[in-house]
Amino acid sequence: MHITPLDVRTGENLYEAVADRVAWLIENETLRPGDRIPSVRRMHEQLEVSISTVMQAYRLLEDRGLVEARPQSGYYVRRNIARRPDEPTVARPATSPRKVRVRSLSHVLMDKLYHAGVVKLGAAIPDVELMPVKALNRCFGQVLRYNTVAAHGYDTPAGCEALRVEIARRMLDAGITVSADEIITTCGATEGLYIALKAVTKPGDTVAIETPTYYGILEKLEELQLRSLEIRTDPRDGPDVDSLAEVVAAGKVQALLTVSNYSNPVGSCIPDDRKRAIVGIMSRAGLPVIEDDVSGDLNFEGSRPKTLKAYDQDGLVLYCSSFSKTLSPGSRAGWCIPGRFAEDFLRIKMAISPACPMATQLAIAAYLKQGGFDRHLRRLRRCYRDQVNRVAQSVGRHFPEGTRVSNPDGGHVLWVEMPEGVDSMQLHDEAAEHGISIAPGPLFSPVGQYRNCLRLNCGIQWSPRVEAAVATVGTLARQQLSAGAPGP
Amino acid sequence: MHITPLDVRTGENLYEAVADRVAWLIENETLRPGDRIPSVRRMHEQLEVSISTVMQAYRLLEDRGLVEARPQSGYYVRRNIARRPDEPTVARPATSPRKVRVRSLSHVLMDKLYHAGVVKLGAAIPDVELMPVKALNRCFGQVLRYNTVAAHGYDTPAGCEALRVEIARRMLDAGITVSADEIITTCGATEGLYIALKAVTKPGDTVAIETPTYYGILEKLEELQLRSLEIRTDPRDGPDVDSLAEVVAAGKVQALLTVSNYSNPVGSCIPDDRKRAIVGIMSRAGLPVIEDDVSGDLNFEGSRPKTLKAYDQDGLVLYCSSFSKTLSPGSRAGWCIPGRFAEDFLRIKMAISPACPMATQLAIAAYLKQGGFDRHLRRLRRCYRDQVNRVAQSVGRHFPEGTRVSNPDGGHVLWVEMPEGVDSMQLHDEAAEHGISIAPGPLFSPVGQYRNCLRLNCGIQWSPRVEAAVATVGTLARQQLSAGAPGP
Repeated sequence: MHITPLDVRTGENLYEAVADRVAWLIENETLRPGDRIPSVRRMHEQLEVSISTVMQAYRLLEDRGLVEARPQSGYYVRRNIARRPDEPTVARPATSPRKVRVRSLSHVLMDKLYHAGVVKLGAAIPDVELMPVKALNRCFGQVLRYNTVAAHGYDTPAGCEALRVEIARRMLDAGITVSADEIITTCGATEGLYIALKAVTKPGDTVAIETPTYYGILEKLEELQLRSLEIRTDPRDGPDVDSLAEVVAAGKVQALLTVSNYSNPVGSCIPDDRKRAIVGIMSRAGLPVIEDDVSGDLNFEGSRPKTLKAYDQDGLVLYCSSFSKTLSPGSRAGWCIPGRFAEDFLRIKMAISPACPMATQLAIAAYLKQGGFDRHLRRLRRCYRDQVNRVAQSVGRHFPEGTRVSNPDGGHVLWVEMPEGVDSMQLHDEAAEHGISIAPGPLFSPVGQYRNCLRLNCGIQWSPRVEAAVATVGTLARQQLSAGAPGP
Repeated sequence: MHITPLDVRTGENLYEAVADRVAWLIENETLRPGDRIPSVRRMHEQLEVSISTVMQAYRLLEDRGLVEARPQSGYYVRRNIARRPDEPTVARPATSPRKVRVRSLSHVLMDKLYHAGVVKLGAAIPDVELMPVKALNRCFGQVLRYNTVAAHGYDTPAGCEALRVEIARRMLDAGITVSADEIITTCGATEGLYIALKAVTKPGDTVAIETPTYYGILEKLEELQLRSLEIRTDPRDGPDVDSLAEVVAAGKVQALLTVSNYSNPVGSCIPDDRKRAIVGIMSRAGLPVIEDDVSGDLNFEGSRPKTLKAYDQDGLVLYCSSFSKTLSPGSRAGWCIPGRFAEDFLRIKMAISPACPMATQLAIAAYLKQGGFDRHLRRLRRCYRDQVNRVAQSVGRHFPEGTRVSNPDGGHVLWVEMPEGVDSMQLHDEAAEHGISIAPGPLFSPVGQYRNCLRLNCGIQWSPRVEAAVATVGTLARQQLSAGAPGP
């Protein structure tokens, strides 16, 4: 076994880097269940780190459930690490524009999501415990104390300038070079998406979407009386370029809306060349693209992916994002870069809600300015990656034979495709009785497809309670299958 | 002169009550310019307060510019207290439904509103210095420290429960008996108004409105592709009942939207019996009423006025309000009581912006719970009343002969009707060159009427700078008239 030099990322402890290295070898099956992992001494020599650092790393792997210590013998890869299930199949979309009808299903989910004591595998909302709330609260305190008038004063229509400046700086990582003037803050990315859709469409228009699609987007389409046209979507690479080109050429759509990076729910991340191609197709047709990049900062490895906006020469991409998944879900600090639609966007924002809360915007601006965000992001990415892996493995262990699960390179949700015959709406109700919330598949389709699928939120901290919840959902799914097996 | 026993309101200092009494006598012209006001000794005996209290009161009246001391002689009502100009005439509304077109005008105003250094007589936004920011910031600190998870966590669809409970308690003063469950929080009253309008109408519908109408409402009508039908409006008592009954009977409107208390811009406050009649007319026709009560807490005298919602037997009134004018303009904490439209309201809220910022909502809930709000409100009402009076008097002193000005019993805006021939759009541009922002009349009409009118914000603290600004606007208006006088 050859081990390349250790690459310790900034903000990471040395022992975490050692543990990550071993975890990676287990994930890619270089080390398989039952294998002995390199001895502490050997690791110490190969990686040139201290004995105690290796021991700390191995204890971390033990905590993560990846290895187990055997007395007098060393550390072994746990036998019951389930192989990660296969990925879902490519979705077969509806071929004609559809009127969007989601309200009844979404309502079912939302009703259950907010009860205390529920294991929240449903809504894609991360644990506040993972967020840098202490540092953020210090910034809040400073803003309220030293910038009182601004903190309680009225926002400008485009939003808090200090925050827009910080966002403009951060956008460079996403391949976007903009000034603060080109950014408009919104109440979460979701308000931005609504306004962006309203700005570029009129009732009756058809919007190309990926499939499955985040139900929040479907709700917006429905409210705005828009039709959807699902584009064939690869669970890894996102919307299919040829399919998109075809519907655009046929004049079937007036806009495209896509979650470009670590999509919700399948976790696809559009490769750079495909991003460029998609923007090219839309630009040549003079059609707008609404880009939801709310998870773009949540890459598990390497550097942050680029965006569609990065390839936008004509100002046709309306880019939306927020800090809900990276800093504070409750602060609702989002933004949009609406390109050539800035005037329409601002006019609609003025009509709906002309100002965002100032104290929050100023506090986040102060936090970003002081410079701990990248360090926090590195920690958060590892954390989401671990949680996504654990839930995926748990699904492999507990769900019915033949269940597939997505294998995203970022974000914090998993898309689970169970065998035909499992009804995820029924499963949702059954899980709710056990105090578990899940997001059933039909929510992610404009016409109620994906009945045998569900989305699991991995933004909550892994714990025996979460593992038990995943196991319970798997057991309930198995029971459905065996109850259905004999046939009526 | 008979003086009734002094009524000191809670939270008010004794000397302030004495000053208020004398100010009231001046306002209602019991004491006129040049009159000697009762001697300190006489006041001391009549009111049974100490000599030093009366002297403090008289110094306050001097500060307010109402009286002046003459050596060896006593205090006199200032000669140059202008008589308050007459009130505006009853508006003559358009008689047919109109497509709303406001964007270009509103844009003109908004562009200028947010520059530092501008005297902000334009937007109806109060000075943060008038708000209890210290107490509110303490609550913020406590919430962030002791309720961290909730403060950064995701809001429920209906909004922060702690805040809804406090709002439900406060609603009793407005004659509304509701539980927290019937309240939905919004990002300011303005988001609530947009959602309420969207919930009860479809594009092409006609909404009855008062005239002149707050431009924010007109912008919403335009965005939602609604038509407006202006109802004859009394500058004191609001929409005319017979006119409303007529258009309702003729099936000309699908909803009514009204700022029931201290309307923006004319300051009308619908009397209780008229409120009852309006709700009755709409209820019998089964039509919804959207009530904007954002200034209802800002009564200058007596107790807080009731609301249309107080007379709503059928759940047809969608009540919207916020804390923007009473606690913190920048916090954007609003709410709606949507009655029978709750489900539609919530569905639309979910599609636009499913959650309001939590820290702000929790901080305001904590502030309301600790119980200093009513004391603050009493102070704020006096403050707004004084500022409104001062601006009105200043208008009387500096604006062209024949200028009329509203005489509201609450709120913090004044509606100024100048002689025909003054163009308030031009005046807006001229004032902007002097660093003064005003809201020109055409903004308040769906078809650009009220060209000789303007709205003045009295929410900012009175100062020589503000007085000079009002004088400048008056001078500019006079110049327009004299330039126009010779005629082409």
